[in-house]
Amino acid sequence: LRSINKEHLVMGRGRDGGGSSAPTVPPITHLDYDNSENQLFLEEERRMSFTGFRCLEISRWLICGLIGVLTGLIACFIDIVVEKVARYKYEAIKQNIERFTEVGGLSISLILWAVLNFSFVMVGSILVAFFEPVAAGSGIPQIKCYLNGVKIPRVVRLKTLVIKVCGVICSVIGGLAVGKEGPMIHSGAVVAAGVSQGRSTTLKKDLMIFEYFRRDTEKRDFVSAGAAAGVSAAFGAPVGGVLFSLEEGASFWNQMLTWRIFFASMISTFTLNFFLSISHNNTGDLSNPGLINFGRFESENLNYNLYEIPLFIAMGAIVLGALFNFLNYWLTIFRIRYVHRPCLQVMEAMLVAAVTASVSFTMIYFSNDCQPLDSEHAEEYPLQVHPPLHHQPLQTSPSRILLFMPKQMLKLCFLSFIQLFCADGEYNSMATTFFNTPEKSVRSLFHNQPGTYNPLTLGLFTITYFFLACWTYGLAVSAGVFIPSLLIGAAWGRLCGIWLASLASIWADPGKYALIGAAAQLGGIVRMTLSLTVILVEATGNVTYGLPIMLVLLTAKIVGDYFQEGLYDIHIKLQSVPFLHWEAPATSHWLTTREVMSSPVTCLNRIEKVGTIVDVLSNTSTNHNGFPVVVQPSKLCGLILRSQLIVLLKHKVFVELAGSRLTRRKLQLKDFRDAYPRFPPIQSIHVSQDERECLMDLTEFMNPTPYTVTQETSLPRVFKLFRALGLRHLVVIDDANRVVGLVTRKDLARYHLGKHGLEELHLAQT
Amino acid sequence: LRSINKEHLVMGRGRDGGGSSAPTVPPITHLDYDNSENQLFLEEERRMSFTGFRCLEISRWLICGLIGVLTGLIACFIDIVVEKVARYKYEAIKQNIERFTEVGGLSISLILWAVLNFSFVMVGSILVAFFEPVAAGSGIPQIKCYLNGVKIPRVVRLKTLVIKVCGVICSVIGGLAVGKEGPMIHSGAVVAAGVSQGRSTTLKKDLMIFEYFRRDTEKRDFVSAGAAAGVSAAFGAPVGGVLFSLEEGASFWNQMLTWRIFFASMISTFTLNFFLSISHNNTGDLSNPGLINFGRFESENLNYNLYEIPLFIAMGAIVLGALFNFLNYWLTIFRIRYVHRPCLQVMEAMLVAAVTASVSFTMIYFSNDCQPLDSEHAEEYPLQVHPPLHHQPLQTSPSRILLFMPKQMLKLCFLSFIQLFCADGEYNSMATTFFNTPEKSVRSLFHNQPGTYNPLTLGLFTITYFFLACWTYGLAVSAGVFIPSLLIGAAWGRLCGIWLASLASIWADPGKYALIGAAAQLGGIVRMTLSLTVILVEATGNVTYGLPIMLVLLTAKIVGDYFQEGLYDIHIKLQSVPFLHWEAPATSHWLTTREVMSSPVTCLNRIEKVGTIVDVLSNTSTNHNGFPVVVQPSKLCGLILRSQLIVLLKHKVFVELAGSRLTRRKLQLKDFRDAYPRFPPIQSIHVSQDERECLMDLTEFMNPTPYTVTQETSLPRVFKLFRALGLRHLVVIDDANRVVGLVTRKDLARYHLGKHGLEELHLAQT
Repeated sequence: LRSINKEHLVMGRGRDGGGSSAPTVPPITHLDYDNSENQLFLEEERRMSFTGFRCLEISRWLICGLIGVLTGLIACFIDIVVEKVARYKYEAIKQNIERFTEVGGLSISLILWAVLNFSFVMVGSILVAFFEPVAAGSGIPQIKCYLNGVKIPRVVRLKTLVIKVCGVICSVIGGLAVGKEGPMIHSGAVVAAGVSQGRSTTLKKDLMIFEYFRRDTEKRDFVSAGAAAGVSAAFGAPVGGVLFSLEEGASFWNQMLTWRIFFASMISTFTLNFFLSISHNNTGDLSNPGLINFGRFESENLNYNLYEIPLFIAMGAIVLGALFNFLNYWLTIFRIRYVHRPCLQVMEAMLVAAVTASVSFTMIYFSNDCQPLDSEHAEEYPLQVHPPLHHQPLQTSPSRILLFMPKQMLKLCFLSFIQLFCADGEYNSMATTFFNTPEKSVRSLFHNQPGTYNPLTLGLFTITYFFLACWTYGLAVSAGVFIPSLLIGAAWGRLCGIWLASLASIWADPGKYALIGAAAQLGGIVRMTLSLTVILVEATGNVTYGLPIMLVLLTAKIVGDYFQEGLYDIHIKLQSVPFLHWEAPATSHWLTTREVMSSPVTCLNRIEKVGTIVDVLSNTSTNHNGFPVVVQPSKLCGLILRSQLIVLLKHKVFVELAGSRLTRRKLQLKDFRDAYPRFPPIQSIHVSQDERECLMDLTEFMNPTPYTVTQETSLPRVFKLFRALGLRHLVVIDDANRVVGLVTRKDLARYHLGKHGLEELHLAQT
Repeated sequence: LRSINKEHLVMGRGRDGGGSSAPTVPPITHLDYDNSENQLFLEEERRMSFTGFRCLEISRWLICGLIGVLTGLIACFIDIVVEKVARYKYEAIKQNIERFTEVGGLSISLILWAVLNFSFVMVGSILVAFFEPVAAGSGIPQIKCYLNGVKIPRVVRLKTLVIKVCGVICSVIGGLAVGKEGPMIHSGAVVAAGVSQGRSTTLKKDLMIFEYFRRDTEKRDFVSAGAAAGVSAAFGAPVGGVLFSLEEGASFWNQMLTWRIFFASMISTFTLNFFLSISHNNTGDLSNPGLINFGRFESENLNYNLYEIPLFIAMGAIVLGALFNFLNYWLTIFRIRYVHRPCLQVMEAMLVAAVTASVSFTMIYFSNDCQPLDSEHAEEYPLQVHPPLHHQPLQTSPSRILLFMPKQMLKLCFLSFIQLFCADGEYNSMATTFFNTPEKSVRSLFHNQPGTYNPLTLGLFTITYFFLACWTYGLAVSAGVFIPSLLIGAAWGRLCGIWLASLASIWADPGKYALIGAAAQLGGIVRMTLSLTVILVEATGNVTYGLPIMLVLLTAKIVGDYFQEGLYDIHIKLQSVPFLHWEAPATSHWLTTREVMSSPVTCLNRIEKVGTIVDVLSNTSTNHNGFPVVVQPSKLCGLILRSQLIVLLKHKVFVELAGSRLTRRKLQLKDFRDAYPRFPPIQSIHVSQDERECLMDLTEFMNPTPYTVTQETSLPRVFKLFRALGLRHLVVIDDANRVVGLVTRKDLARYHLGKHGLEELHLAQT
């Protein structure tokens, strides 16, 4: 195997807390979506009756249901805790304001507010930076990698989940420019990985159920379902969730699997909806399918004219998304170089929290966008007595709108605080944008009457929030980028709408343009396509905007890709992960397996000396994971994995030199499953000098029918086989069935279509 | 190759018009989703620049857009023509009624109505039975087969499309218990197959564009897009369309492909919507995304209680769908045996038309379900002056509701005709159900006030319509089963709702139960899962019902599968099509390739005598389509297809015996593409006795890197490889790379999990 510098297999050093502070980080490993159909496996399958298979199928459904319920509950928990804690926070500020309004010391209230934010962010950041660095960010790049077949260490552990949930709560309450939606995807995935295995290594608890599912193939299927359930809970978009999982992960579309994924998604959004309705004392009101919803776009606002479509497309071509990615790329490189100690990371997060608070204050203070306080605007802070005004739709149930700010308190704040810098009977438009939760601001930008926002306010807000969000993404806090992106996009989209209306004298509903802008910005940043369209359509609740949203996302992707990759892909690339795209680069037909494969290959004999195996496994310079098994003269007869060899060595499945078998317990699949997925390193297995002379018979344990290709096969063809079947190793044979090479994920992920044709990525380069 | 009785490769003899009347029907063939990467292909790919690939990609998008536009236009055309012609029909009846109301000869009006229906059905049936039998039915089974990789002759030809469109119009106007939605899927697929090839053999017109796409892989991708566009236009469900295509066809999920499919779907529903809005003089009102929509379910009606979910599931377990399939199965067998002449088929269709009309009359005549004619019910026949009444939603734009019956005329009919058997100020509830278009009846059942329908009326209607629809499906007319299923289900669902409300004294909105019943019935008949859920959710326009619909469909599938397969699967099976399901049967691990494969295999040498090739191709007892190419001693070096050999023979690409090459034009990929897809039969190619002694060098044309497996590979593993890559031939080699067998689609499709474990289907049995 071509040796790949080990350094690059360590996931994102900066974000992992640095090589120095976390030296025990295991290297990233790859998942094997292809079952190792060895004799043990086939025997088990052949023994199993039809009823047995049916029970397995029922278990799979049960697990998916459970994944949905737990994911929904986690989303619900985050939502409720954020609501409660934020309420206490605002209560405290409110009391402070009331106390100081008379004496004119309102700056003290502001400082109190800043200090509170600061503390929450600090707690969240310390949790992430010191206890579980992999819980930082939204987790979507990590889950994308997992579904692609690359396992980043500790990414689906219970501890990660706990830190992630606490971290998200802290960073949202801390007032950072973040959303709580992205991390739900990671949370769902962890739940799935845990539930499907029927045990937790963190809790040292093995329920002895679902043992059949303890292998990569099954686990990855469930993780797909978990990710989908997460999307579903975050955006109330079960179909979008399914498509997200498929788009990111499933190379092989399986009907039953997709159906189960959909089931998990449905259950997840239903659970969230149901429990939120209980917590809002409105049991059975199923109007909160996700953590965010965009409010109802009414039909009369929805129609667009044909001539607007080019305008939408033009908005999609605004490269603010790519600019965001560009800035974040350099910021991330800076962080990897200089901010890799946990304490530095915590300090940076606190700095961002402080800056966010200060900038908000400055903006509000210097803003002179005072809007008259009439009944229409008052509706933004709805009191239940207000009926929905004319074509301003009832955005959602009132209890939802008041998620963060109970209305009495809000009214007070509003009158005594936000109005402060404005005349009586007016309020500060900038303050309403900054002091709302991002979710609420997005909805206001979509639905508020034309004229609510001053263009200058929107412009300044866009610029400020853009830089804040860009700085925030990549901090050592758990937080998502979806909501900030939507907010930035909605702001400049609304600006476009206002500008168009004034310039071209056409009537343009600014809310509509806000939606398009949000789609353009989000699409420009994350570059998701099909699933994002469906997520946005489901969150909008109306299919009419499907076509424009799709065209905008398409434009944003095409234009954005010209300048910079998507944000997740940037982060994946910075971690040197061998990520396989959908197809081989278009112009790679001239490459054949001969050029691509790693060779020579370390092969093992079917009956091999234990010493040789130990030596091969201990060779840190190669660190291979799969070994073709051969019979002389080097004819391929199987493939065995490092993990299998480790289990064999651990159980000392040796044949004595003389040929007589030791009295040993026959190894069963259960032994492999018990060791899954944390196989011990070879260094921890002691093999005595005597044992080194024994032989091991691999016949029973190797996969006797690995997929093979010949050396003349073109790269696209190998790529297709590899990707479609989710392989980890593909053996290359010559015309006499002799092993001549091995194709692994890294061999294929190297090739990349750059601006100057096919490029070979140096996965070994930082 | 194992010889398969040729009889069974002839698609559905009965429905094809009988072996006797259509003796020239070519056998069904299989599609090859795996590119034949021969030297010619690789040379072309290697010559192509990056810009070339980009142009191809842009062409693909263009084609998908075009597919969407054309499919939308076809749907629009059908809708408008049906509307116009039905209007003339009703005008005629109306005048007749007016004339005879005074003298009391209303039975003459009834006879006029019956005769009109009769004539339309006759025309439609003659078109289908005599001119293009493959246009019968909804075409969904045929498209399922196509996407699965089985090409039924003439299924994607222009002529089929024309007949299909005319046939649908005739059968819908003829008042049969059919829908016009199913056939849209077939229509979309034909459009896609035509547009993507840039030529029409029916019209003998070759535009010389899109030549690159003239192979199975590309064509099948486009047909997926076309089918999705059809679903999208039929139900206003672009996401449902994509999922339909994926569920039925795509084994290998490709992101860009899916994205293009989605684009085609979006364009299709947009086109339909836009042109319908023009035809309704309401340009820009995008409220008709599909041929059917279910009306708007308002939020207050939507909520369901937790305790209702078991009720929904119980409704899903009502096996009326399976009963429908069971009856239709025997009916189809009867038809295959006895009704296979076109004239008999036309007579049967006419009989059904007559019976449908008579039964309706009888039911109306004997029904005494007279409902008071108040403003609420008058709304069913909406006059524009009526504002939408309280929580009865404005179902859709008025112009849409009056699709078939202009309101003045309808009012007249209503007063003078439907009221006839009732007292003044009342109307006949049975008549309203029978005399509406099925689409309109479905909407009424979903949305009408509780109390609109008498339980007896609903019960009688369900039974009658059930048998009528069951008899109608499979007639030699172009028509779909979606709408009748929905209607039957909505009727008994509403009945359940009424019954529950009276029995359990709980308030149950009958409209809600109608929706659940419709889902249960449709799901029980077609057994689609994910895509149907999404289609129904999109047609309902509200995601809240997603979970119940999904649970109902799931129950309907599980319970239904216990008794009988899905309707489409039944028809596919009756045609002995080797249809590959998603996975190998669960209990098939004990089978290895050795048992499954066909052997011995007819191999060709790399340099082979022309005579041998001609003899092999002419051997009608085997009729092989793929031949491994070997070098002595029988070492595999490639795979060549019958179609390629035919082109080679046609162009006489021979090497003279002496070894000197004939002066011949070098064959190019273009020659293969020009011949695609209708390769001439071997009998039409004349090879002289001298030429028989020549040699042919296959090196350049064979696929040098076919996928291979060994004999020990288990069936599930082979199946997965075969299905994931869409293979047509899979070569089996031994450990010295010698060809020992060949696995084809038929070898894998044979195995089937029956009630008593694994069964081997006799594909050769009628």
